[in-house]
Amino acid sequence: MEKKGNLLTVREDVRVLDATVRDGGLVNNFRFTDEFVRKLYETNIAAGVDYMEFGYKADKDIFDESKFGKWKFAKDEDIWEIIGEKDDRIKLSVMADVGRCNFRRDIRSRSESPIDMIRVATYINTMPAAIEMIEYAKEMGYEATCNIMAISNAQEGDVAQGLRMLAGSNVDAVYIVDSYGSLYPEQIDRLTEFYLDILEPAGKKLGIHTHNNQQMAFANTIESLSLGASFLDATYSGMGRGAGNCAMELLIGFLKNPKYRLAPVLKFIEKYMLEVRKSGAVWGYDIPYMLTGQLNRHPSSAIEFIAAEKTGYTDFYHMLLDREV
Amino acid sequence: MEKKGNLLTVREDVRVLDATVRDGGLVNNFRFTDEFVRKLYETNIAAGVDYMEFGYKADKDIFDESKFGKWKFAKDEDIWEIIGEKDDRIKLSVMADVGRCNFRRDIRSRSESPIDMIRVATYINTMPAAIEMIEYAKEMGYEATCNIMAISNAQEGDVAQGLRMLAGSNVDAVYIVDSYGSLYPEQIDRLTEFYLDILEPAGKKLGIHTHNNQQMAFANTIESLSLGASFLDATYSGMGRGAGNCAMELLIGFLKNPKYRLAPVLKFIEKYMLEVRKSGAVWGYDIPYMLTGQLNRHPSSAIEFIAAEKTGYTDFYHMLLDREV
Repeated sequence: MEKKGNLLTVREDVRVLDATVRDGGLVNNFRFTDEFVRKLYETNIAAGVDYMEFGYKADKDIFDESKFGKWKFAKDEDIWEIIGEKDDRIKLSVMADVGRCNFRRDIRSRSESPIDMIRVATYINTMPAAIEMIEYAKEMGYEATCNIMAISNAQEGDVAQGLRMLAGSNVDAVYIVDSYGSLYPEQIDRLTEFYLDILEPAGKKLGIHTHNNQQMAFANTIESLSLGASFLDATYSGMGRGAGNCAMELLIGFLKNPKYRLAPVLKFIEKYMLEVRKSGAVWGYDIPYMLTGQLNRHPSSAIEFIAAEKTGYTDFYHMLLDREV
Repeated sequence: MEKKGNLLTVREDVRVLDATVRDGGLVNNFRFTDEFVRKLYETNIAAGVDYMEFGYKADKDIFDESKFGKWKFAKDEDIWEIIGEKDDRIKLSVMADVGRCNFRRDIRSRSESPIDMIRVATYINTMPAAIEMIEYAKEMGYEATCNIMAISNAQEGDVAQGLRMLAGSNVDAVYIVDSYGSLYPEQIDRLTEFYLDILEPAGKKLGIHTHNNQQMAFANTIESLSLGASFLDATYSGMGRGAGNCAMELLIGFLKNPKYRLAPVLKFIEKYMLEVRKSGAVWGYDIPYMLTGQLNRHPSSAIEFIAAEKTGYTDFYHMLLDREV
């Protein structure tokens, strides 16, 4: 597949999205201080980041609000509290999970909201429900994306069918999501081509969201970018569930558009991300995540293993292999 | 450039080389216990690793033997002490730096030595001296490779000239070495093609040695592999100078040849590599290494910064930028 752009030029279609509060929130139950979120917002503006994700629009009838920080619910009023008023230099997004969001109640018209984009997260088998949410978000005036999760375990024919449904919808962009951190660049190549073949003729953009189980999050992100992905997810210090995500500092250091600036990113990391780590939040490449990635499994068993501070990697590996039967 | 092989098949030309004692030795001044090195040797055999590197052949007239562990000097008698006798299942290598090795004194005939391969490390401007060492090693019966360091800062015309000299020599393989961890997969692509264009017609194999400054060590290794590299360097837990190397566990988990086995690798990591970390050896991806990688600099300033336990990343970044002038 032909490369789009090269290492020295600027691709004007690129959009960097900071998912620290959302994917990082999965590490610390969304318990970020207001100061952290406000400084992150200011940092994203200073660094030229295009979108900042403020968390999930989770349904409070399903999740107990007392058990999570507020960014699991990302209410408009809480976002206003952080940002004051809208700033043209950055757009804001939230993620809404199919089946875990009361979207008709919790997502109001964009004209009254600080939010610009709704990212609908779905498995391939709930695509009709995802499209219903996407069309609702579009009617309410938002940009809308679809993040199809766990595709490394899905049938290619099913993914193709889902992509054709999305091509016929009003969605703006669709993400390749490597939920298990199991994909290698050669597979990202194939998927990028496969997604673009269906999405590009319909005028949809492509996005990429990676996990670092095999130290491939950044490599896979720029691989997909080089072949045509426009929306690039990253988090500060790679903070995210399990092995974490593509690190913002690697991505901003790589992109050639002079609007992206690394110094504010470094400042935020030294001042705030180191503190988050010290407070006990644990993420990043480690052997158990590598193993679930290599074996294309959900990272939950690795997260439990690491939370229990175990180091019997060989036993863990054999346990995973046994479960495959 | 066309891919050689694919994700599901075996490439019979692949050779995995464990450089833990050598590149990892740069982290702890080569102070590994005999038990560590012996178990590593047994592990490499059990895991199907093709070569194990036992350190440097450094000149004791240049380096004070009391200031380093013995693997800086990798004497034949010390290697015999570990392995007992030669085992056909694995080959052994040492690295010899141009200008820092008294090779005519310290490298004896292969028939009397436990060593099978001499890896000559050189900068591009000392190529004649490197080739003198390579021809000597070949005369003594060894396999010989050339590891041209710091090519990300070298002129392409100079590298081409060096490669043509090597093509005319008796060297067996030549390595692409990303000394500063500054290269992206697209650059590795170009270099792989560039090296192979000159080396392949002369019957020389290609090797790849990476650093993890930008979390690209594993990605770059398999990128070069997919385009034709045969000799792949890795270290357990990625132990190596600064940001470290391609992790053995990632590489062995990726390769499809059933001779490679992951369980012994995991066993060694949980038993020995965790201990090495606990003993105070520090390596692996961190912001200062990322910055020297992005800026294509030697990691020494980042190593000092981290050894001093500093976290002023922004100041460090600006210091690096100032130095560029």
